[in-house]
Amino acid sequence: MRLLGGIEAGGTKFVCATATGPQDIRDTTTLRTTTPSETIANVISFFRTHGSPSSLAAVGLASFGPLDLDSKSPTFGSITATPKPGWANTSIVTMLVDALQVPVAVDTDVNAAALAEYRWGEAKGMDPLVYITVGTGIGLGGVFNGRLMHGLVHPEAGHIRIPHDVRTDPFSGSCPFHGDCLEGLASGPAMTQRWGQPPDKLGPDHEAWQLEAFYVALGIVAVICCVSPRKIVLGGGIMGHEGLHEMVRASVRRILGGYIQSPFTQARIDEYIIPPSFGKRSGILGAVALAEDISEHPATQ
Amino acid sequence: MRLLGGIEAGGTKFVCATATGPQDIRDTTTLRTTTPSETIANVISFFRTHGSPSSLAAVGLASFGPLDLDSKSPTFGSITATPKPGWANTSIVTMLVDALQVPVAVDTDVNAAALAEYRWGEAKGMDPLVYITVGTGIGLGGVFNGRLMHGLVHPEAGHIRIPHDVRTDPFSGSCPFHGDCLEGLASGPAMTQRWGQPPDKLGPDHEAWQLEAFYVALGIVAVICCVSPRKIVLGGGIMGHEGLHEMVRASVRRILGGYIQSPFTQARIDEYIIPPSFGKRSGILGAVALAEDISEHPATQ
Repeated sequence: MRLLGGIEAGGTKFVCATATGPQDIRDTTTLRTTTPSETIANVISFFRTHGSPSSLAAVGLASFGPLDLDSKSPTFGSITATPKPGWANTSIVTMLVDALQVPVAVDTDVNAAALAEYRWGEAKGMDPLVYITVGTGIGLGGVFNGRLMHGLVHPEAGHIRIPHDVRTDPFSGSCPFHGDCLEGLASGPAMTQRWGQPPDKLGPDHEAWQLEAFYVALGIVAVICCVSPRKIVLGGGIMGHEGLHEMVRASVRRILGGYIQSPFTQARIDEYIIPPSFGKRSGILGAVALAEDISEHPATQ
Repeated sequence: MRLLGGIEAGGTKFVCATATGPQDIRDTTTLRTTTPSETIANVISFFRTHGSPSSLAAVGLASFGPLDLDSKSPTFGSITATPKPGWANTSIVTMLVDALQVPVAVDTDVNAAALAEYRWGEAKGMDPLVYITVGTGIGLGGVFNGRLMHGLVHPEAGHIRIPHDVRTDPFSGSCPFHGDCLEGLASGPAMTQRWGQPPDKLGPDHEAWQLEAFYVALGIVAVICCVSPRKIVLGGGIMGHEGLHEMVRASVRRILGGYIQSPFTQARIDEYIIPPSFGKRSGILGAVALAEDISEHPATQ
């Protein structure tokens, strides 16, 4: 039996899974992210225990970044300049290939989540599809003309600049690079710093949520204007707040002001900006999808 | 001999050309944009004079918009909600096909320009490639994963919202939909309204240019963060101002603050954000490229 491996590599935890496909996850485990060598050894141990060298066909890695995804680069598949202690320049793909002796496909966590939603979710086949996550960071992945979005590096939509009226929101922003970029104004840590308590402690009627919806909407408007996606999947921990999706949609519609000629940016916007079909499982399912692709088309990676 | 026709349809003029390829433009004409019926009759007359029904293989149309580019739509190939008097809902592709009896490919003027640069320019083969024009309007086209950028509609990058400090720039913006969106702050008409004279009358040391560079750079930063292009071709009438390209590049680099891990957003940014190889000819060459594509692959349109 052909087994696929998936790894969702995050800054605080690694989720590993074996599966024959998205509907058939066999085993999963969640590992704490410690040092690269210890964490990756634990990942390898999981796959050696739950697969066998002959049954494991390929592994997909959906990773935090920034990542070197240039297949011609000598450091392809490495985590590059992350501020996470010890993880900068970790050649995670090489370590996995050496230990497991199977093809390993790698992409950003957000591109992997986009792939899962594109392949199996409510947004199936919608192209361009964009997946936006609003949580500890703000990230963007997507499928464009049938393939995942890669470019000079990968999208970094959290770092666009958006209007910031310091008279109504004097918070100067939490981004160490840019201060009040989108992520600096609207990520989880930004909310915690602005309001003095984490987002999950803010009541449902707290003014924080209207401001959050406005900033996220400004980011989405930039994405709509630059990419013109056919569907936007909006996930991440912050978006779990009840009612926030509706507030973001209303704000996007208000900001666009009827300019984009489509019902999906107007009366039918609830069909256009949608939550992930797989919730928190988008990432690990995306990793399995990456494994599936490389097992079928190893030469294109 | 197989002849290709190109049309660059603009709000003030239509440029028509016959060519065997980009290096071999045979005849061109420039027609004033009047009513749809008169203008299109003149276009048809040009192709009847300079081609013959048997020699003309296909026509490419690079048009102002907004356009309906959804091939499944009953109004495919129409100019839709333009404010230009008389032109809303003009089914220009149908009129050309009926009169000339050849395949007609249509796309936005900016996508066509992007295609010309992608196929024959300094940015040849760079994918994703983005073409940004700064002139009467601000527009974006591009090639992503081998094909032109199409989506829900088409990119409308002129209408993103950017930071606007009313203390240093009290101008409220010229966009009838959004006021101070990117186009409302940085298009040619916006400059004229803000400074009381058209851009070409502003001296080379006028403060207008530094502000213009800053706004254009904010737009480019949004494009870089959302799309991660491998190359940005920056054209349009405003960008013809001497020294403006250098000012925009410096401003992009300053705004990004070293975050994007690539030499092309830092020391080598002059290779990343470049002027069009074909200057004002990108549009008509792009139209010829569209014609070439549909003559070779009519079924994919």
